[in-house]
Order: sequence, then structure tokens, then C-alpha cells
Amino acid sequence: MTVAGRFERIALIGFGLIGGSIARAARLQGVAGEIVTTARSEKTRARVAELGIVDRVLASNAEAVKDADLVILCIPVGACGPVAEEIAPHLKPGAIISDVGSVKGAIVRDMAPHLPANVHFVPAHPVAGTENSGPDSGFAELFINRWCILTPPDGVDADAIDRLRAFWAALGAKVEIMTPDHHDRVLAITSHLPHLIAYTIVGTADELAQVTESEVIKFSAGGFRDFTRIAASDPTMWRDIFLSNKDAVLDMLGTFTEDLSKLTRAIRRGDGEALFDHFTRTRAIRRGIVDIGQDSAAADFGRPLPQIKKS
Amino acid sequence: MTVAGRFERIALIGFGLIGGSIARAARLQGVAGEIVTTARSEKTRARVAELGIVDRVLASNAEAVKDADLVILCIPVGACGPVAEEIAPHLKPGAIISDVGSVKGAIVRDMAPHLPANVHFVPAHPVAGTENSGPDSGFAELFINRWCILTPPDGVDADAIDRLRAFWAALGAKVEIMTPDHHDRVLAITSHLPHLIAYTIVGTADELAQVTESEVIKFSAGGFRDFTRIAASDPTMWRDIFLSNKDAVLDMLGTFTEDLSKLTRAIRRGDGEALFDHFTRTRAIRRGIVDIGQDSAAADFGRPLPQIKKS
Repeated sequence: MTVAGRFERIALIGFGLIGGSIARAARLQGVAGEIVTTARSEKTRARVAELGIVDRVLASNAEAVKDADLVILCIPVGACGPVAEEIAPHLKPGAIISDVGSVKGAIVRDMAPHLPANVHFVPAHPVAGTENSGPDSGFAELFINRWCILTPPDGVDADAIDRLRAFWAALGAKVEIMTPDHHDRVLAITSHLPHLIAYTIVGTADELAQVTESEVIKFSAGGFRDFTRIAASDPTMWRDIFLSNKDAVLDMLGTFTEDLSKLTRAIRRGDGEALFDHFTRTRAIRRGIVDIGQDSAAADFGRPLPQIKKS
Repeated sequence: MTVAGRFERIALIGFGLIGGSIARAARLQGVAGEIVTTARSEKTRARVAELGIVDRVLASNAEAVKDADLVILCIPVGACGPVAEEIAPHLKPGAIISDVGSVKGAIVRDMAPHLPANVHFVPAHPVAGTENSGPDSGFAELFINRWCILTPPDGVDADAIDRLRAFWAALGAKVEIMTPDHHDRVLAITSHLPHLIAYTIVGTADELAQVTESEVIKFSAGGFRDFTRIAASDPTMWRDIFLSNKDAVLDMLGTFTEDLSKLTRAIRRGDGEALFDHFTRTRAIRRGIVDIGQDSAAADFGRPLPQIKKS
């Protein structure tokens, strides 16, 4: 009996948060025969070998993809084009080639030209993550109840799409299909702009003359600390995202800046009614997110409570 | 033997997240003899009575403060001036009058003129909270390991300051003293600006033509959902904060906008180095916050993990 979504040999190019989580979840769900992974640094390879989750850890991407039925690039978006070129001559005919990048237009543009006609290219983006990175940061629950968006180019084999869909479903994800262009617009507002703004405000706080960094850190529980989490995300990954989804990000940024000007004007003019109306509307979106299980209903994200000491 | 920080009779004007948490924590730590509270709506008063945490629930602020040794206004900043005027004739000589407002300059300006010379006015701001409000939202752990900032005007009795400090310390808080003006600048960056930006981006996402609200909600785990939590905070409270800390907020907003323009320019020009440098710097602040226990070291704020189902 075949488990739905199972692949006999999976090659993961990169073993960071996403690659490491795929390996853990696929192993646990029995949807992977052999798992081969690569990592660029010797230190990471040694750690991955030590973790014992995958069958083989290699330095060579070309060697890793040999005979693999499913190849997933789990590396920053900017590195995907060169790696596609590197592995192309070594891919098994009929293999599915995918990725996990947060931008899809650039992935299709950079990877597709290198891939041979006898493989199936199905770009993917699991919308899940934490602020951590590296081989120890992954965990098997990461994709449960999260969406994974597939953006197959026109003409891709329907069976290959179904097999990749089944794989992600086995890892716990809900799968949705859209065009690369629409994906990039959706993610620009739900992920890229939030990160840019968080990176900005944390930088602003770091440079103030009138308020010290130590004060910013001490009094961060008033709201600021929420922003520091995503502003602690991997710099290489995020540099590549902004460079490769430039148009959609700049577009959303334009709208955001206009909206910020409106609220700024309301504050300057002392227009309490405009502020109150705006602050009331935004509550509904939070409720929607909690209602469909995309965030915890617990107060404060469910941050652990300190122990009470009786004085 | 007297417990440090204990008051024989405490009057809490308002029983929302902060008032309700003070009542619960003070009760648990044995630093309150009688606790009297007021609430404007009959529904809230009925619920507070039902909860059984305080000794008496009243509709009248004037009656509540009678014979109270410590009076704390736990209401939106904009309501503090009128309430100070209302309770002034009924205050017990020698009583300490305080508040919990997120703005301190306006509190001093609005409350001080009404208060008689024979009471001690010590404004306070516990830097703690969640996105929830109402009589059920409070909890005794809220202030543990959080800062409470006191901003006593010049000439306030040192003993009164010490007694209020001991009270907050008993509730688990660390106490710091600063001027109202410096408080308002610090909070503008660590709390008010983050809220304004979160309110803005959630509003932006709500109004987009190209991305539906349902898509924003579904794919929010890419970062956006973090912002929706603070954008779900109480609208009245936040309207008052922006109206009463206008200058400091507009000032920080100016710096933020300049910094956002710099990052926008880096994206437009494809300046990956500038982006990478910025994104690397911001990680240090997160580490500082986690190191001093102002946020959880757990990934993703310690959001609860879903259960693994074997497929």
C-alpha cells in the first residue's frame, strides 16, 4: 500500500528552518523513503549528521539530486537560479522540482529556464515560519494548519501537482494554487510589508538620541517587543525577498504610506472620531484570523505566564 | 506586622484589564485590606460582583474614594481629568492618588489642578497589557517582571512615593521614576508608535482591491498576524493616548518615516548590501529584550504548537 504523498527519495537542498522542518515532518508521517540533504557549511553538515533525521548529508547538490523523485530547494530566493542551473544536468527524468521561496515570480523566472523538459517544476511556498534559523530550528509541527501555496507554470503535469499537494497535505498543510503574480501581491501585504515595517521601527528605536537603547529594551512590553520578533528573522533570506518582489512591495508600501499620512493628520488635528473609527475596524480582522485557527485565541499570543511568588 | 506595600482601603476607578489585574494581584499578595471598585456600566458592575474579587462594587466614584488610602484611576487617559474633579472633594486627607495611564504629561496637566493639597498625587504607568479588555481580561501575573514607571511631580512627599513603589513591587513589578516628559518620549517609541503602525497596516490590508480580506486572513501567518494582535486593542484607550501624546508621537513618526524612506530607496535601487546591513543590526535588540526577560525566548512568542496527527 502506498501512503498518499509519499516519495521514495527526497533531496532537500538546504537544511534551515524550512528544510529541517520538512525532513522532520516527512519522516514522522512516513511520506519519505530516503531523505538526502545538502548544506553549504561543513559545520551545518556535521550538525545535521548528528541530528540523525536524514539518511545522508552531502556537500554536493549535483550528487544529492541523483535518483531523487522530489527535489526541494530550501534556500534563500536569490540562490535558487544558480542552484537550478547546477543541478539541472543531474535530475532524474520524471522528478518533481520544487522550492519553498517566499517570492514566486522571481523563482519561476530564475529557475525555469535551466530545468530540462523531462522534469516537473512545481514552485511552492509554505506560509509558515518562526524567527529562528539553522539546522536546530525546525520542528515537525511547523506546517500543521498552515497554507502551502503552489504556483505551477502553465502546462505542468496535473499528476505532478497532485503528488506535491498530497505531500504537503501529509505534512499537515492546506494547499492552494494561484498564479505567481497573485501570490507575490498577497504575500507583499501579509508578510513582506509587515517585515519591512518591523525592521524599520526596530532600526528607528536603535538610533534615537533622546531615548536610550536600554530604555527601549526595558519598556518594550508596551508593544515594541512584538515587532522585534520578526525583525530578528534571517537577513539573507529577507534581503533576497525584497530584491525579488520589489514591484509588489513598493506598491503596498505606497498604500501603507498614504494610510499612515491619514492617521498622522488625524493625530495632528486632534480628530478623535477618525482615530476611534479606524481602531474599531481593525479588530474584525484579528477575530477572522483567530476564528480560522491562524493564530492563538489566547491573550498575548499565549506567551508563557510567569510564576506567582507570594510576597 | 505590616506587609510592605499594604493599604487598608484601595479604591479602583474602573475594572478593565488593568484595574482587574491590580485587584487580583493585590488580593493574592495580601497588600489590600478592603478593595472598592467602580464601573460605569451596570453590566460591568454585575459581572465584577459575580467575580467576587473585590469587597464592594459601586456606581459612584465619589462614594468609592471615601476613606480610601490609595485611589487608582484605571480608565482611559482622556477621562482622568473629569474624574479627578469629581472625586476631589471626597478624598481622604493623606490619601495617595494615582493612575495607570500610558501618557503622563497630560495626566499631570489634567488631574493635578483639581486635587486638594492634603493628598499625595503620584502618577504611575505599569508597562504591561494584552489585547483584551473588560472585567474578565485581568490576571494576577500581568505585572510580574514588568516595569511600572512613576512620574511624581516636584515636591511630592517621598514617603508616599515609597509606599506606592512598595505596592507595585508587591504586585511583581520593577519600579522606575522619571519625569512625565521623558516617560512620554520613551513610550512614544516603545508603545505608541508600534500601535499606530499596527493599526495602519491592518487597515491597509483591509482596504486592498487586489487582495481579498479572506486571503489576508488565510495567509496571515507570514508575519501580518503579529500586527493584528495590538491592532485589536481597546479603541477608546488608544484614541486618548494619541490625542494626549501628540507631540512625542508625531516626533517619533517623523523619524520612522525618514527611516522607511531610506529602506524604500534601498529596495527601489536594488541595494542588497544596505538591506542586509539593516536587517543584521536589528537582531541585537531582540536578543537584549529576551536576555532581560521582557519577552519569551521560545520561538514565535511561545505560541502553542498544534498536535501532530499521524496520517
